[in-house]
Amino acid sequence: MTLLGGPHLDARHLADAHDPADLLSRRGREATSSVIRDLLDWTRRPGMASLAGGLPAAELLPVARVGEAVARVLREQGPTALQYGPTDGEVALRERVAPTPSRAADVVVTTGSQQSLDLLARVLVDPGDVVVVEGPSYLGAISAFRSAGAHLVEVPGDAEGLDPEALAAAVAGGLRPKAVYVVAEFANPTGATLTAERRRRLAELAERHRFLIVEDDPYGALRFAGAPVAPLAERTERAVRLGTASKTLAPGLRVGWALLPPWLRDPVVRAKQAVDLHTSTLDQLVVADLLADEEFTAAHLARLRSTYERRCRALVAALARLGGGRFEVTPPAGGMFAWVALHRSLGLTADELLPAALDAGVAFVPGSAFHLGAGGELRMRLCFATLGEAELAEAVARLVAAVDRVAPGR
Amino acid sequence: MTLLGGPHLDARHLADAHDPADLLSRRGREATSSVIRDLLDWTRRPGMASLAGGLPAAELLPVARVGEAVARVLREQGPTALQYGPTDGEVALRERVAPTPSRAADVVVTTGSQQSLDLLARVLVDPGDVVVVEGPSYLGAISAFRSAGAHLVEVPGDAEGLDPEALAAAVAGGLRPKAVYVVAEFANPTGATLTAERRRRLAELAERHRFLIVEDDPYGALRFAGAPVAPLAERTERAVRLGTASKTLAPGLRVGWALLPPWLRDPVVRAKQAVDLHTSTLDQLVVADLLADEEFTAAHLARLRSTYERRCRALVAALARLGGGRFEVTPPAGGMFAWVALHRSLGLTADELLPAALDAGVAFVPGSAFHLGAGGELRMRLCFATLGEAELAEAVARLVAAVDRVAPGR
Repeated sequence: MTLLGGPHLDARHLADAHDPADLLSRRGREATSSVIRDLLDWTRRPGMASLAGGLPAAELLPVARVGEAVARVLREQGPTALQYGPTDGEVALRERVAPTPSRAADVVVTTGSQQSLDLLARVLVDPGDVVVVEGPSYLGAISAFRSAGAHLVEVPGDAEGLDPEALAAAVAGGLRPKAVYVVAEFANPTGATLTAERRRRLAELAERHRFLIVEDDPYGALRFAGAPVAPLAERTERAVRLGTASKTLAPGLRVGWALLPPWLRDPVVRAKQAVDLHTSTLDQLVVADLLADEEFTAAHLARLRSTYERRCRALVAALARLGGGRFEVTPPAGGMFAWVALHRSLGLTADELLPAALDAGVAFVPGSAFHLGAGGELRMRLCFATLGEAELAEAVARLVAAVDRVAPGR
Repeated sequence: MTLLGGPHLDARHLADAHDPADLLSRRGREATSSVIRDLLDWTRRPGMASLAGGLPAAELLPVARVGEAVARVLREQGPTALQYGPTDGEVALRERVAPTPSRAADVVVTTGSQQSLDLLARVLVDPGDVVVVEGPSYLGAISAFRSAGAHLVEVPGDAEGLDPEALAAAVAGGLRPKAVYVVAEFANPTGATLTAERRRRLAELAERHRFLIVEDDPYGALRFAGAPVAPLAERTERAVRLGTASKTLAPGLRVGWALLPPWLRDPVVRAKQAVDLHTSTLDQLVVADLLADEEFTAAHLARLRSTYERRCRALVAALARLGGGRFEVTPPAGGMFAWVALHRSLGLTADELLPAALDAGVAFVPGSAFHLGAGGELRMRLCFATLGEAELAEAVARLVAAVDRVAPGR
C-alpha cells in the first residue's frame, strides 16, 4: 500500500484519508441537484403561486375510482395482488397498454417512465456513447442518460420539435448517436409537437444511421387542439415508445411502461430484475383496472383535457392582457407546459428575473435549466396544469410586477 | 467514417453491421439470467412442490388490513396519496422505520430493498472497485453490485455467518474493499446468523480499513428461536442498514428503506431521483399505516413467526425422518431458508440432483448458484415459508426418491 505520492494517487486509500465520503463513486460524487429541486423549497412557501412544477391538477386525481379499484383487486385477486410478481409486469396491464394483442410480450412495465429511461440508459449506453436530446429537453432524461456515462449532444428544436435536418447535418459531420430522445407530443419544457413530416424524416434517419429513437409520451393523451399525429414507433422498428399513468391517472402510483423492439425486451427485463425486481403489483393491477374501464377513462381524460385547455388559455390570455408585450408564447396544443419568452427588448434573462419573481410570490423554471450548455436564456417554463384560472392570472400579474422591478422602463 | 478495418474496430459502426442488438451496452449484452429465473418455468408446473422460491406464505398476506389501510389513506389524505411525492420518501414512513426520531432524516425509502442495493452500488462503486460478499450470498446483491462494475470477492461464511478472520486475512493480503455486504440474520441462502462476536469484529475491521458495511435485514423480524443480536449499524457508523416490508407485510408493495450515514444520504437521494423519482406514494402510506398499528403488526408478526417455525421444524423433521442420513442441516433460528447438504457419501452434487428432482415434482435452488466461483456443490437452498407442513413432507419424500434414482445404492 502506497502511503505517499503525488496528486495522481487515488486519495481514497491513503492512510490519512478519513472522510467516509471518499468512498463515493464518480456517480455518487456528482452533484446533480437540479434547479428544479432547489426551487422546491421556494414553491412550498405559503402563498407562492408556482408555475414551476410539473404536477397534474390534484383536484382531478381519481381518488374515489382508485379506492374502488383497490377494493375490487383485493377482493378478486386476494394475496396475488400483494405477492411478488413477474419482472416484466402484470399481464393484465401489459395487454391493456400494448397497441395490439400480439405486442403485449414486447411491453415491460416500469416504476414510472423515469425508470424506463434509466433502464434504457443502462442497456444501451456505455460510457462515452452519444445520446442526442432536443435542445431544450426533459431533465429526467438527461439525468438518466448522464448517469450511464452518455456523451449527451443537443440538437436544436423549435415550435415543431427537434429539427431532423440539424440532426442529419450533425450525423453527416461524424456524429454517431446510439439513441435520440424525443418527447414528440407537447414536450417538456417547450410544449412543442413534432410534425408528421419531421417524424417521417427522423424515422428515416434512425434506419439509415441505425440509432434508436426513444419516444417518450407522457402527455399525448392530453391533446386539446389539433389532430393527432401517428407515433414514431408506428413508423420504424428502431423506436422505443414510453407510456405512463402519471399524467393521465396518478403519478403517485409510479406505473409506466415501455413498448420495445423484441431484441431489447430481455436486456431491459434483466436490468430491471437487478434494479427493483418488479413494479408494485397492487399499483399495476389498479392501473389495469382503471384502463379497462373505458367509460371512466374516456370521461376522465375528457375532463383533464378540457380543464387543461381552459387553464392554458387563461395563462396565455393573461400573458397577453397583463404582459403588454413583455412575453411571447406559441400556445401548445396539449400537455401541461407553455414555453414563454421574455421579450428581447427587456434585456432581461429568465435567470435574472427569477429572484425577483420568487420575491413577488411566483415561481417558474428558467429555460437555461433545460439546456446542456448555453441556450434558453430568455425562456421560462410555465406549468398551467396545477393552478386554477384565477390563480394563473394572479401568477402572471406577479410575474409582470417582477419584470418591472428588475427591468424598469425597459 | 471507417468502412474497413480489422477486428479491433468497433463493429457497431461498420456499414455492414445490421443487427440492431449491436446497440446494446456492455451491461445490456451481459446475459445474467439466473438459475432461479430459469427454474421459474418449472416451479409453475401444476403439481410441482417448490422449495425453490423465496415467497412469503400467500395465505398470511394481510389482504383485508391492506384494504382498510388504502381506504383510510385515500379518505384522510385524498389526492396527496396519488400525487408526486418527495424522492427520499413519505415522512410518516421514514419516521416510523427510523431507530430514533432524530434519524428519520437519514432514512431513504426505496422501491424494495433491491433498489437500496442498486442505489448503493451506483453511489459507491466505480468499475473495478472491490465489494466483498459472503460465500454464498444473495443473488440480487451480486447482480446489483456487478451491474455497477464491482470486482466482487467472496469471503467464506459458515453456520455463524461471514468469517471476519478470513476477511481480515484478505485485507492483510492487500484486498481493499469499498463495501462488505452481509445478511446478518437468517441469511439468504444459508439461514445463518452472524454472531455478536463476529459483528463486533466486522465493525472493527470496517473502521480500521474504512470500508462500508451493507447490512441487509429482510428477515430479522422473523426470528423464532434464540435471542436477538444488536445490528451492525448500532456498532459502527460505517454501516448502512436496509429494511423492507417484503417479508413481513407484502412484497408486492415494493417498499423498502435504507438507514444511511449522513454523508451517504444526499448521493443516494440524487441517484434515486434519476432512477424512479420516488417510490409509490400510496404504497408508502399503506405501509406506514400498517406499521403505525402496533397491535396489528405484533399479532401479524407473531403469526408469521409461529407459522414459519412450525414449517421449518416440519421440513427439518422430514429431512431427518425420510432422509435416512442423506441430508444434513443446521436448523436456522428464523427467516425462510434452510441450507441443506447432500451427504458426502452419496457422491452426488445438488446440480446433478436437480433434473431428477424436477422430474419427481420438487424444485430447489442448487447451492452452487449462490457462489461466484466454485462452492456449495453439495448444498440445496430449501424455502420452508411458502408450503404447508404436509406439502413440505411430500416435497422431501420426492427429494428422497430423486436422490435414490440418481444415486442408487450409495
